[in-house]
Amino acid sequence: MIKIINYKHGNSLKPILSRSQFSYDNINKKVKAILEDVKKNGDKALIKYNKEFDNADTKTLEVSKKEIDSAYNRIDNKFKKTLNLAYKNIEKFHRMQIRNGFITNEENGIVMGDIINPIEKVGVYIPGGTALYPSTVLMNVIPAKVAKVPEIILVSPPNKSGKINDIILAAAKISGVDKVFKIGGAQAIAALSYGTESVPKVYKIVGPGNIFVATAKRLVYGEIAIDMFAGPSEILILADENANPIHIAADMLAQAEHDKLASSVLITTSENIAVKAKEELYKQLKNLSRKEIAEESIENNGKIIITKSLDDAIFISNELAPEHLEINIKEPFSILSKIKNAGSIFLGANTPEALGDYLSGTNHVLPTSGTAKFSSPLSVDDFVKKSYYTFYTKEALHKVKDNIINFAENEKLEAHANSVRVRFEK
Amino acid sequence: MIKIINYKHGNSLKPILSRSQFSYDNINKKVKAILEDVKKNGDKALIKYNKEFDNADTKTLEVSKKEIDSAYNRIDNKFKKTLNLAYKNIEKFHRMQIRNGFITNEENGIVMGDIINPIEKVGVYIPGGTALYPSTVLMNVIPAKVAKVPEIILVSPPNKSGKINDIILAAAKISGVDKVFKIGGAQAIAALSYGTESVPKVYKIVGPGNIFVATAKRLVYGEIAIDMFAGPSEILILADENANPIHIAADMLAQAEHDKLASSVLITTSENIAVKAKEELYKQLKNLSRKEIAEESIENNGKIIITKSLDDAIFISNELAPEHLEINIKEPFSILSKIKNAGSIFLGANTPEALGDYLSGTNHVLPTSGTAKFSSPLSVDDFVKKSYYTFYTKEALHKVKDNIINFAENEKLEAHANSVRVRFEK
Repeated sequence: MIKIINYKHGNSLKPILSRSQFSYDNINKKVKAILEDVKKNGDKALIKYNKEFDNADTKTLEVSKKEIDSAYNRIDNKFKKTLNLAYKNIEKFHRMQIRNGFITNEENGIVMGDIINPIEKVGVYIPGGTALYPSTVLMNVIPAKVAKVPEIILVSPPNKSGKINDIILAAAKISGVDKVFKIGGAQAIAALSYGTESVPKVYKIVGPGNIFVATAKRLVYGEIAIDMFAGPSEILILADENANPIHIAADMLAQAEHDKLASSVLITTSENIAVKAKEELYKQLKNLSRKEIAEESIENNGKIIITKSLDDAIFISNELAPEHLEINIKEPFSILSKIKNAGSIFLGANTPEALGDYLSGTNHVLPTSGTAKFSSPLSVDDFVKKSYYTFYTKEALHKVKDNIINFAENEKLEAHANSVRVRFEK
Repeated sequence: MIKIINYKHGNSLKPILSRSQFSYDNINKKVKAILEDVKKNGDKALIKYNKEFDNADTKTLEVSKKEIDSAYNRIDNKFKKTLNLAYKNIEKFHRMQIRNGFITNEENGIVMGDIINPIEKVGVYIPGGTALYPSTVLMNVIPAKVAKVPEIILVSPPNKSGKINDIILAAAKISGVDKVFKIGGAQAIAALSYGTESVPKVYKIVGPGNIFVATAKRLVYGEIAIDMFAGPSEILILADENANPIHIAADMLAQAEHDKLASSVLITTSENIAVKAKEELYKQLKNLSRKEIAEESIENNGKIIITKSLDDAIFISNELAPEHLEINIKEPFSILSKIKNAGSIFLGANTPEALGDYLSGTNHVLPTSGTAKFSSPLSVDDFVKKSYYTFYTKEALHKVKDNIINFAENEKLEAHANSVRVRFEK
């Protein structure tokens, strides 16, 4: 049974903050061997691994434009419309994040600023297998597209027929991917990191994956950029006595059905809501198709916490720094400024997380495991980088000449001082 | 002797793009043991390591406000003025980077946007030893301060007298650090990552360090955030026939004196400039106090490349993605839009890199080793994080209800669909 914890201000947060984690067995050695193999043998290694790991015969690794178009034409019209609506909303939201570089020239003879350029080549990893998430394609590709990344490469493991599923290809087409390759696992990360005969080398890889993918990303990190290390998905619901326990339970279960390690936490100021939400959880659980997963998630990682005040609830929320935060209280906007650490915040009774998972427009790639304390949801910012620029006239440089020399001398870097001096000699 | 390479369009870039790298011997095991020790034994372990690694007796680890003030008072007035001028310029430039969250409510019943909050606790690592760089303090602390980080902790190893050097403390005071601790190496990274009796746990660590510091940062990365993995420092100078070879050589040597692994590259369309810059390099080298370091850097990692056209030079520059780029041509602004990958760009004859190292205001913490292809100079952005927020009315949710259910069903996530359905039942 899910625990109900009575929290009093000043109590230890330890039992509340404990979290499930993916277990990362040490498979570094295995993954390193795969990386080396692909680096050395290119496409040949990729074709071999497709056979070995995915039981797929793939003579060519790239999916042709024609195949992508056919896949798009095959998906049903209703879902096509849904995908296109999601695309429209996600694109619109992310357009708000486009930034221009700045320029400053307040002082005579001085011009400075930053320039924002897209990363030139980006890879997107999309898992295969039974859990096929076209939403993940949209969420990872659209911000890159909005950032004007000129080359977006999608990779995904082939199924036994040597193909990528239609709904993944359709989502790739809608979101504007440039090239698609049938490769998965650590070998796909290797191909994107080093490049092969057919797969272009990229400068950044985003997208979720299993432990082999995550380990490979960790190993190539530094040589190229990666997005983040995702932990189990999680939701925190803040509720007062006005919330509807049926909705709360449904939202907790939507999180729980993802993964046995997923966690659903309710913090409420109302004992009544706590008790009723608990009842509802077990009632709704009965009929779920993914009952087994959801139940284990709720039993092991679910928590219901009762606090004396809303401030205590907010305090715990900020310490937890949840991936998803639903604020299900009477005036949800009234406490928005107090929320310091959270990935995506859903306000009010009619904003279930599922809305943001699919199509309100915010990104569903979010910081997990408390990393919202220092990291951000996926955004256009993740697909651009800045360069600073500076221009000084000789007169402007002359004004600060002695200061630069003074600074360089204090750091005992004589050649630094010289580089200014030579400009005023003779 | 430094090589002069004649590049023809279409030639392999391999000999040009090869770079020196810090060698990371595998010291993971050693560093892991230090991390564990500090996690378990806190301050006691830190005091032990101060004795063991820095030969310093430190009963208390924190530097008192009084000690910091005394250090500030002891530094000479001229340098105090220089530090304060640098502070003013750096602060002013970074203020241009402050961003506000956005809000969008174009559609009836829908409010969405992002909120930007500072990271609540940040640690700054400053190396000790003989190379004392107060500029590094300013560059790492000021953007955090501008981002409104409420708690900035500076750590730096003690010298043999158990103290941190005056100029480091003075720079800490000027830039507005909240607390200073006399700890260094992997043990300092551990203290900031886990917290001890006296050292607060932080959520992000920035600042350069030796191999122990870099390895420790790599190991804690994910649990907390880190800035970047810095490689050897580097400059690329693009010059046409109008450039002054004396200035070019001086700027190359300013880079070369940092480190034997530092690299200085000149790309020029003028054979005359190539030859003269080479002569000047060896002439100026003779009298440098750090001659040995600079010479080894120039001999091993210096390059002079002659190209047929400015476009070829720009092409190579974008492939190299240099940390520092000087554009020393007649009309430097004319090619700015063609520069895709570079950390900090210095335009024209009178903008030596040393200006940006110290006090023009741009940050000197920059992406090295070609990572400018996917990462940015240190900025205010590195000290904030975003949260998304969404509010829908019941009517707005009703409009997209079927689309969410349709999407969830296509992803076989029934509880996701339920979480929307329950809101319209009864």
